[in-house]
Amino acid sequence: MRRVAIVGIGKTKVGELWDKSLREIAGEAVFSALHDADCSKVDGLFVGNMLSGILNKQENLATLIADWAGLSGIEAVKIEAACGSGAAAVHMGLIAVSSGYMDCAIAMGVEKMSDSPIAETTKALATAADADWESSQGLSFIGLNALIMRRYMEEYGWTHKDFAPFSINAHANASHNPNARLHIKISENDYEKAEMISDPINLLDASPVGDGAAAVVLVPADALQGSQKPLVTIIGSASATDTIAIHSRRDSLWLSAANKSAQKAYSQAGVGPKDIDLFELHDAFTIMAALSLEACGFAERGQGPRLGLEGVIFPRGYIPISTFGGLKARGHPVGATGVYQITEAVEQLRESAGDNQVPGVKIAMTQNIGGSGSNIITHILSRN
Amino acid sequence: MRRVAIVGIGKTKVGELWDKSLREIAGEAVFSALHDADCSKVDGLFVGNMLSGILNKQENLATLIADWAGLSGIEAVKIEAACGSGAAAVHMGLIAVSSGYMDCAIAMGVEKMSDSPIAETTKALATAADADWESSQGLSFIGLNALIMRRYMEEYGWTHKDFAPFSINAHANASHNPNARLHIKISENDYEKAEMISDPINLLDASPVGDGAAAVVLVPADALQGSQKPLVTIIGSASATDTIAIHSRRDSLWLSAANKSAQKAYSQAGVGPKDIDLFELHDAFTIMAALSLEACGFAERGQGPRLGLEGVIFPRGYIPISTFGGLKARGHPVGATGVYQITEAVEQLRESAGDNQVPGVKIAMTQNIGGSGSNIITHILSRN
Repeated sequence: MRRVAIVGIGKTKVGELWDKSLREIAGEAVFSALHDADCSKVDGLFVGNMLSGILNKQENLATLIADWAGLSGIEAVKIEAACGSGAAAVHMGLIAVSSGYMDCAIAMGVEKMSDSPIAETTKALATAADADWESSQGLSFIGLNALIMRRYMEEYGWTHKDFAPFSINAHANASHNPNARLHIKISENDYEKAEMISDPINLLDASPVGDGAAAVVLVPADALQGSQKPLVTIIGSASATDTIAIHSRRDSLWLSAANKSAQKAYSQAGVGPKDIDLFELHDAFTIMAALSLEACGFAERGQGPRLGLEGVIFPRGYIPISTFGGLKARGHPVGATGVYQITEAVEQLRESAGDNQVPGVKIAMTQNIGGSGSNIITHILSRN
Repeated sequence: MRRVAIVGIGKTKVGELWDKSLREIAGEAVFSALHDADCSKVDGLFVGNMLSGILNKQENLATLIADWAGLSGIEAVKIEAACGSGAAAVHMGLIAVSSGYMDCAIAMGVEKMSDSPIAETTKALATAADADWESSQGLSFIGLNALIMRRYMEEYGWTHKDFAPFSINAHANASHNPNARLHIKISENDYEKAEMISDPINLLDASPVGDGAAAVVLVPADALQGSQKPLVTIIGSASATDTIAIHSRRDSLWLSAANKSAQKAYSQAGVGPKDIDLFELHDAFTIMAALSLEACGFAERGQGPRLGLEGVIFPRGYIPISTFGGLKARGHPVGATGVYQITEAVEQLRESAGDNQVPGVKIAMTQNIGGSGSNIITHILSRN
């Protein structure tokens, strides 16, 4: 298997992009990534997307995007792993390039959610849960996460305000990110007083969905000898599943798929948690930030919130998270999120992150979660 | 890249499987393929499916199936390329195994369509077309194919009854296939008198959709030294796209993606059309059988129907097609179809096809079409 570099990145703003269609936002990210890569020949397109069939009445999505981007003829496929679709697409593109089957692949994620009524979007998102035993019982995704958070607080003795730092950090970081959906800094008081959505999850525990697309261009690292740009390579890429329904798990407070995929990625990369300089994690809800930190070895079981309270997740801490705002404030265009995380890690490694720059980043990790922790993809990137 | 063998196959009957759920039919195919393969350790699951989000309210589908099949923990992803999803999943699984990234992958396709009202299914299938410029104008998939067939008849001077052999052959072959949806032999008279659906496409030009699942187990061929079973390997696997909308094509009567993917697969396999002993093609409509034969080099442009009229597509002809009934009569559970085609080719190569056996098959080709010829995947299999 060849070492693979990310040679181009592109993305749109996350938000309610009323004046752009699904294909237009996808194209914007692809064109931008190709321009950044200075790449002329593309062998394949891997599109991460969860909801185009339900919300946009468009399947055959990869064909549409290849066509719109002027790449018609090339191999193109859509990859679906719920909210983990974006990183799953990068993972597939990586296999295709590292194997030598392709010399240049675009992996991207796209989601267009604003055109649908919110009730329809909520129902569509619930398709990531078990249709027969969870969502058909009326359990929404936020409801599932609320059950987990309530149980976690009960089990480990945390109170709601102990989760505030995750949200405060994400909002503070997003305020410097022009592509973020939300640019409002928040205080602990704002967090505590935010409107309740699904007890104990309030508005500032939950990430906003939105429209958005992000893309990366993957090539063999050897092809880049002599390039002037900082070389960012993927040194770990791994995927694992857990049961789809939470009630089937031995421990509903342990993200076993996050643990498995992180351990596999660490092993591929030859690193451990102490070597990771920043972690773009999947903070769809504050509870997920805590659970991811634990599953990936940054905190003991049940101690994730401590990293927030101790401030180590902030940009100058030893494990900065959500450095561009995370899902919480950059926004969560579901099938695109995993690719946003990776483009953000690349910007940090290139030292082109502007006001969001974390100093001295050599190795960055990203983790994208599909379903209630049921399909999880971890990437580790390095600046060489 | 390592040579990859198909070491296990499994499938369900195609039809209205009222007593089985989506996960149950998927599991049936997976268990059957694993049993056939005598395989204990699986590294990854690739699920071809088009419509589970829209029709079954279930995304995160690969996670669900891994979980149900007792494989929870492994890497799992859903692959969507409209009606080409099944073969696209096999293609992805092949890349993963041939690259050395996995030592054993299950690639499968599944679709559960009977539980939805037919109007909903028709709308769902139309998501394979261009949502902004085709389906939103009220054009259904059968309507698109009717436009192509009408133009083809006008351009090349064929009459409707010239397409009869495609349908007659498929129905005759399905009559021996216990897994086929339809077991009715038809005559030219039946074909001519069948109910009109979308002029010139009548009921016997069109394939029936249905519920169904099929699976294959992929391993490196080298791992099978000493096995007693006939060794079936994949010697060509290629994918290509065309414009998603038919109106964007220079020639709406030429399947350029079929041609590209077939040429690439021929080149990988080191064979040409004259070496192919049978061809499981994508006869969703009789016109598609004619166009596929032309694009893959078995007939001159505009001369596809001649192969039917001359009888060479029948089991004893020089290029037998739809040997288990094809989409037309085995049935077309859309995301599963491409995997059915491959399992059928494997049965022919193993000489275990029973009454459907084509004598002396050494090399078989399959071709799975997504959209109106917009995403096409070709496989060439060999008995070694």
